[in-house]
Amino acid sequence: MFYVNEKIKDLYRVAQPEGRGKYIRLDQNENPDGVPKWLFDEVMEKVTPEFLSIYPEETIPTTKYAKLLGLERENVTFSDGSVVGMGYIIKVFGEPGKDILCVTPSFAMYEVYAQMIGMNVRELNYEEDFTYKVETTLENINENTGIVVLVNPNMPVGNVYSRDEIVRIVEKARENNAIVIIDEAYYYFYDQTSIDLIKEYDNVFVLRTFSKMLSIPSLRLGSIISAKENIRCIDNYIPPYTVNSIALLFAEAIVDHHDRLIEELTSQYKEGKDYILKALADHGYETLPSEGCYVAIKPKHKTSREITDLLEENGILILCGKDGLTGWLRLTIAHKKYMEIFMEALLKLDKE
Amino acid sequence: MFYVNEKIKDLYRVAQPEGRGKYIRLDQNENPDGVPKWLFDEVMEKVTPEFLSIYPEETIPTTKYAKLLGLERENVTFSDGSVVGMGYIIKVFGEPGKDILCVTPSFAMYEVYAQMIGMNVRELNYEEDFTYKVETTLENINENTGIVVLVNPNMPVGNVYSRDEIVRIVEKARENNAIVIIDEAYYYFYDQTSIDLIKEYDNVFVLRTFSKMLSIPSLRLGSIISAKENIRCIDNYIPPYTVNSIALLFAEAIVDHHDRLIEELTSQYKEGKDYILKALADHGYETLPSEGCYVAIKPKHKTSREITDLLEENGILILCGKDGLTGWLRLTIAHKKYMEIFMEALLKLDKE
Repeated sequence: MFYVNEKIKDLYRVAQPEGRGKYIRLDQNENPDGVPKWLFDEVMEKVTPEFLSIYPEETIPTTKYAKLLGLERENVTFSDGSVVGMGYIIKVFGEPGKDILCVTPSFAMYEVYAQMIGMNVRELNYEEDFTYKVETTLENINENTGIVVLVNPNMPVGNVYSRDEIVRIVEKARENNAIVIIDEAYYYFYDQTSIDLIKEYDNVFVLRTFSKMLSIPSLRLGSIISAKENIRCIDNYIPPYTVNSIALLFAEAIVDHHDRLIEELTSQYKEGKDYILKALADHGYETLPSEGCYVAIKPKHKTSREITDLLEENGILILCGKDGLTGWLRLTIAHKKYMEIFMEALLKLDKE
Repeated sequence: MFYVNEKIKDLYRVAQPEGRGKYIRLDQNENPDGVPKWLFDEVMEKVTPEFLSIYPEETIPTTKYAKLLGLERENVTFSDGSVVGMGYIIKVFGEPGKDILCVTPSFAMYEVYAQMIGMNVRELNYEEDFTYKVETTLENINENTGIVVLVNPNMPVGNVYSRDEIVRIVEKARENNAIVIIDEAYYYFYDQTSIDLIKEYDNVFVLRTFSKMLSIPSLRLGSIISAKENIRCIDNYIPPYTVNSIALLFAEAIVDHHDRLIEELTSQYKEGKDYILKALADHGYETLPSEGCYVAIKPKHKTSREITDLLEENGILILCGKDGLTGWLRLTIAHKKYMEIFMEALLKLDKE
């Protein structure tokens, strides 16, 4: 029998949900409406059969995007989704046998990639009250640490790391020859960034995505931001032509119209967030503080599984919390019109 | 300093060409016109901001595509381009320290991926007359062989392997616990396939692409076809959501209208091929026999570098042969209208 990489052969993977188009989708932290029509029209006007016949070209969109971030082209590389980008970092900079530190619960793929290359996953836990103590991370960084993962804001709880906390982690990691991945998938919902740290610390990698606030998850686009030498190594690993040309057109248009777009999307989001948090509080629902576009909600009468199933029967998808969030509902925060639909359904269904 | 994978850090990679949109593109084996307008319109009608707001769903298009091939869904997986797919196979089934056998010159990424995981690349050469002897491959398969790569038709020369030759290679590989990757990127230009071999031989992996005859290189879509257990292992390796939703819409539409589409694209291609081969012969140009959508042409007066540069000044991109094809021009065969433009320019420029 031929060789199969044993670390991959029996890896446990979770299938992604499908058939979601017919539902109100409040389960995957997408913006259900997508990008504004004016941006969509401007981009799609350029898409023709001939345009689709040409291999993708990344230099111009990457350069524009880097400039938007106050960086140079060599500090940035695109990937077909930030979930692919995090894999690149782990595969290039992850040392087999060393530890990767991940807060749990969080985004599962960090652990999956680490297992693929034979790193040891060290899961760091929240406190009982769903706060996270940065000391838990700091205490676990030592000479066997290879990678520290900070999802900021973290998912699915929604807590954040302060600037000072991040710097302390980055410095202790650097003393121990470890890198720090700062996953800013939920940037724009929360306006603090660590991007400028890449100028001072060569062990920092920031991930961004176009799937959350930027509203094009279907097109698969994310970015990796780091010191030039790190990006050079990652570009050595990336296969040719992984990001498609329509995603790259959107990247350019998003940069060209950045402030207008963000203002539109942010104000829509904030209206939805203000509404749903007040409505939940008014009706006596306990929630966990969150700086991301999601909130954990404790049901009052039925179980979280019962409510999730009933909502699905009523055409609404949300997530049923598990692991550290067992017993909680996980809701994507979106435009007020969707929050009203959710709230009405919740009040109708969450009864004795 | 933190760890960097040494195999990747100093890997030699070639940048892809850019700024090609303004040229007549006869250098990358694309179809310069792209898909027919009727297919394009049918697909793009479904693309809305809301459609782009949903994470991609692969099950339905993959199932339809597998059925088109006479296979089951579990025999097939999509990748964002077949160049990414070949990387998956090598990363999952490539054993560090073993040999990968590649005919040279051929598609460079096989060697790049092999170097990434520490396989030894064994380059197998064409004969002086640009034929390739299958015995060269057979003689080099031994207990240290991990992977045999057959690009069929091979690129850039255009020779093919017969059914019997492929079976002999697959069987000798199997006796030596090696896998065989059969890269059918240029299927449809050449109508023989090895797909049915996957039913008999579990060490066979076939690659297909949507970038050549199927005319959507910009969207990044390829497929890996193999025994179910092999595809299961590859799916364990693939990150979530690598193929974008518009590519998946095209995949469905291409399956739905397969025969009509292929007939249209093939007749266009054949007209171009008949024209250019006759025109080149009529004007005394030596060419190499090719079953792919490309042909190597020996210039008569100027060097291949001079002609390639002059063509570019005249708005036409072709490739200048190198390595085994030094001194030759490499031309993509496309619609007759482009072949006429090329031929006229060649006759004008290739003078003393």
